[in-house]
Amino acid sequence: MKIIVDAMGGDNAPLQIVLGAVDALNQDKNLKVVLVGDQNAIEQSLCECKEYDKNRLDIIDAKDVITNDDTPTTAIRTKKESSLVKAFDALMHDDEAGGFVSAGSTGAVLVGAYLKVGRIKGVTRPALAPVLPTLKGNGVVLCDCGANVDCKSVNLVHFAIMASAYATAMLGVKNPRVGLLNNGVEEHKGNELTQEAHKLLAKTEGINFLGNCEARDILSGDFDVVVSDGFNGNIALKSAEGTANTMLSLIKEGVYSGGLRTKLGALMLKPVFAKVKKKMDYNAHGGACFLGVKKVVVKSHGASKAKSVTASILQAKSLAESKICDKIASGMSVLDKPETAEN
Amino acid sequence: MKIIVDAMGGDNAPLQIVLGAVDALNQDKNLKVVLVGDQNAIEQSLCECKEYDKNRLDIIDAKDVITNDDTPTTAIRTKKESSLVKAFDALMHDDEAGGFVSAGSTGAVLVGAYLKVGRIKGVTRPALAPVLPTLKGNGVVLCDCGANVDCKSVNLVHFAIMASAYATAMLGVKNPRVGLLNNGVEEHKGNELTQEAHKLLAKTEGINFLGNCEARDILSGDFDVVVSDGFNGNIALKSAEGTANTMLSLIKEGVYSGGLRTKLGALMLKPVFAKVKKKMDYNAHGGACFLGVKKVVVKSHGASKAKSVTASILQAKSLAESKICDKIASGMSVLDKPETAEN
Repeated sequence: MKIIVDAMGGDNAPLQIVLGAVDALNQDKNLKVVLVGDQNAIEQSLCECKEYDKNRLDIIDAKDVITNDDTPTTAIRTKKESSLVKAFDALMHDDEAGGFVSAGSTGAVLVGAYLKVGRIKGVTRPALAPVLPTLKGNGVVLCDCGANVDCKSVNLVHFAIMASAYATAMLGVKNPRVGLLNNGVEEHKGNELTQEAHKLLAKTEGINFLGNCEARDILSGDFDVVVSDGFNGNIALKSAEGTANTMLSLIKEGVYSGGLRTKLGALMLKPVFAKVKKKMDYNAHGGACFLGVKKVVVKSHGASKAKSVTASILQAKSLAESKICDKIASGMSVLDKPETAEN
Repeated sequence: MKIIVDAMGGDNAPLQIVLGAVDALNQDKNLKVVLVGDQNAIEQSLCECKEYDKNRLDIIDAKDVITNDDTPTTAIRTKKESSLVKAFDALMHDDEAGGFVSAGSTGAVLVGAYLKVGRIKGVTRPALAPVLPTLKGNGVVLCDCGANVDCKSVNLVHFAIMASAYATAMLGVKNPRVGLLNNGVEEHKGNELTQEAHKLLAKTEGINFLGNCEARDILSGDFDVVVSDGFNGNIALKSAEGTANTMLSLIKEGVYSGGLRTKLGALMLKPVFAKVKKKMDYNAHGGACFLGVKKVVVKSHGASKAKSVTASILQAKSLAESKICDKIASGMSVLDKPETAEN
């Protein structure tokens, strides 16, 4: 299985991307990686890596880079020599290539995937789905968390089908429990969109819809999938992120401003904090999958370091091997009723 | 200054409400309180209280109660003998009464305030605004966080004006920095609603609009006011709440499953955890104010105990003394342009 990697995307490219790719190669002997980007820069980064099997690593030279300052659609259409566009081309023209990883501009990755990879039949809106940690440990797929800011209720049904297939592939859950992100658990709660989506989800076959999920319960472990329009999903995700950071900062502040006893206590609790921090850091376990396009596309966090690049590459491989795209296609194909199939 | 208190609202009514009211009376010699609810139950609860100045406490007997199971609008219209309806009547017919506190059903309190107290001229949508803790310490007003699930952009402009007046009264900030809750900081980001609201807010006089605020920055301390439709505000608030709880649970779990050293460390850090928990618990500092109605209405958390009831009562008094409703009215009166004045 070959994974195409945009070596120039993200704050720490190319070094951390290259380091991460080499670690992935060393961890999985059946993996091949193609690094796309400035060949000289990539080769220089490779000099800083441990030993690796050179037969399983290729480089595609690409002199241009798409940055966060570029307008995604224009950049994908005009920057033909960019690492991102050439990486998508490689993904589509190499039959051995099963998946793609980039830590670059989210907008450009999504637009590129949409235009270059194309949508699975029946999917009008591919969606971005990270896996978040839960209290009970298994993880929860939040879909969509930013690709589609304005949605119709039918899109949320599609998200439920795609994210259910994803939860099965990623988390090993057989019949994923689906919740609808809403402002209350009661059935009648919500805005126009969620009230309509609730009714549609309740009658959609092939998903295990439990009902509404309040934002405070996303991390509870009571759901395997939480669906939302991309705007609200983004708000929920970032609010969680901000709160986790604020709490860690407050604890740190309390420790620094405390006496010797406090500092000693913090030292003794260091392993606990490290574990909590690791658990809350959803980026460490890979990237967010862009569900609904014809090949596996994983968006790694812009600030990704080698470790999370490795995780994203292995995740892309495992998803491609699980034939996630075929499973989504088969899930979508049962939607033949007019109200849940959007044209 | 007299504050009307719904003695029967909330999970711990009437005892914790009555205890909280008596504590408030003892903390502020210029405060009068009217407790509305079942007279026998209130008198029984009063027997469990410390000494207090009986001249400053009145009881209005009300035999009925509105619960979370009631439909708000129907309940307010038909349950004339309920503590909530009688409390609103007292608020409106007693000229000395400056404010109102309830820990009862949020929906019923909002509908009651809307119908019985009435809106300030120009305000089409009163909004619920809690004060959240921030890293830098001053607090931030999140408005709306649940009263209006579907909003127009002009409503968000009204929220900005009302919440700015509120931030000045509650937090003592002179020229409150206003952010628009959005899925990115860049000006062009957002869904239809926030893109439109951004343009309107930028040209509204009398507010200090800084631009978009991502959900991860709500608690940063960089904003004094964050405006949002009630659905998104609710998602952001509850996601923050859920994450804070999840993190505390994870730390607790780590401590319990650790060895003696971990437990000793936790013991030494106890004051730090207590401080963080207290800081993150926005309910301890009072309730959420329902901005845009003609008198001060404070909604205390349903699980409120005496301490937060006391805080809510003192908050209501201080807001009434600051003439917050007049200030909101004067802020709204400058909106005479057709695009920001909604009829």
